[in-house]
Amino acid sequence: MKIDACFSPHLYPVYKADDTVVVIIDILRATSAICTAFEHGVEKIIPVATVEEAHEYKHKKYLVGAERNGLPVEGFDFGNSPFNYMGDHVKGKTIVLTTTNGTQAIEAAKDAYKVVIGSFLNIDALCSWLIKEDKNILLLCSGWKNKFNLEDAVFAGAVTDEISNRSDKFNLGDACLALKYLYQMAKENPNKFLTHSSHKERLSALNLKEDVRYCLTPNQTKVIPIYRDGALVKM
Amino acid sequence: MKIDACFSPHLYPVYKADDTVVVIIDILRATSAICTAFEHGVEKIIPVATVEEAHEYKHKKYLVGAERNGLPVEGFDFGNSPFNYMGDHVKGKTIVLTTTNGTQAIEAAKDAYKVVIGSFLNIDALCSWLIKEDKNILLLCSGWKNKFNLEDAVFAGAVTDEISNRSDKFNLGDACLALKYLYQMAKENPNKFLTHSSHKERLSALNLKEDVRYCLTPNQTKVIPIYRDGALVKM
Repeated sequence: MKIDACFSPHLYPVYKADDTVVVIIDILRATSAICTAFEHGVEKIIPVATVEEAHEYKHKKYLVGAERNGLPVEGFDFGNSPFNYMGDHVKGKTIVLTTTNGTQAIEAAKDAYKVVIGSFLNIDALCSWLIKEDKNILLLCSGWKNKFNLEDAVFAGAVTDEISNRSDKFNLGDACLALKYLYQMAKENPNKFLTHSSHKERLSALNLKEDVRYCLTPNQTKVIPIYRDGALVKM
Repeated sequence: MKIDACFSPHLYPVYKADDTVVVIIDILRATSAICTAFEHGVEKIIPVATVEEAHEYKHKKYLVGAERNGLPVEGFDFGNSPFNYMGDHVKGKTIVLTTTNGTQAIEAAKDAYKVVIGSFLNIDALCSWLIKEDKNILLLCSGWKNKFNLEDAVFAGAVTDEISNRSDKFNLGDACLALKYLYQMAKENPNKFLTHSSHKERLSALNLKEDVRYCLTPNQTKVIPIYRDGALVKM
């Protein structure tokens, strides 16, 4: 069995393979927000790629989260800060979500064998499930507008490290070999390690340091969101 | 000014920018072979993307190198081993070259401001020139069939490390931040570091360990091949 990583939704067709579990990664902040939402009782999240689709759902009275370039899009209920998805206003609800990167990655991989959502918030539960699932794994980093980004890579390295420490069933593809080393440099203090990363700088400029700190905190939930019939649900 | 890295020719359109010097990287073995050829007096290399184009040149009596999946293609003069490009049989000649990955990367980036060829064999000369050139730099890794590969990434990390040690003019993009760390893990013994990389395993299986060792040896030449009017020439 193999574990590999892809650094851009645009490259997914190159990595696409049968019988592969795809883990969608968008640490700052879509996949962190999605894990948080399910931990706080959201029933379903419908990911959509475009703001136009999000508008259609808004007209139909859905709760809609929409983010572009790190900011909430005007006219919607919230952006993609995990803190927006905590509390009674989301409990039992279906939420529609569109973001700059994460929902594009879900769209790219939606026909894969299984598509699940990963973040530091659910990393331990995710790795346990991936090992039990016993299939090839592709870690699909959402990146930033189809470019490599550091925080998604560090998380993919953390998953690679965790899985290869706990199981010897998986061969590491070249990207995962590199990521495992990267994570070993980062794990002492991921927040500090990411200081010069482009997206952390972008969010710091937007006064979102608390978001970053929360998104880098491991094991806040045991939920694993999975994509089924066009929507994310709790596994 | 910025230095960034792209891990697949397929992603080049995402990274494409004006006024950027693109460094083509295919350590095992196309860009190592190209640097070797110019060091041994080749006058011009015409890179072509397909075996069909290479055949057309062969009919016109050109010397043609053609490689697919690590092996020379039957009916041509040589494959892409650097050892094929040493000696009097290449001196003063124009050679046509097609390879699995490297010539695809050249094809992708051919309209960039400047396109040059990088390998461990010319790394010192290359970095000195890049610093003097004073433009944005994109390190374009050829990878393996559009997937990330470890040896191209390690070389891109070496260039990043060298340039950022010698000049403070360049900001590092996220990929280069990661690669700089990767190179710090690899530099003690790149050959050993690459032991489990997919392409090194592929070449070892083909009895090409000597090729690998040579391709990882720094500073065998000061030539910097540059792409001009459809062909590579010595700068």
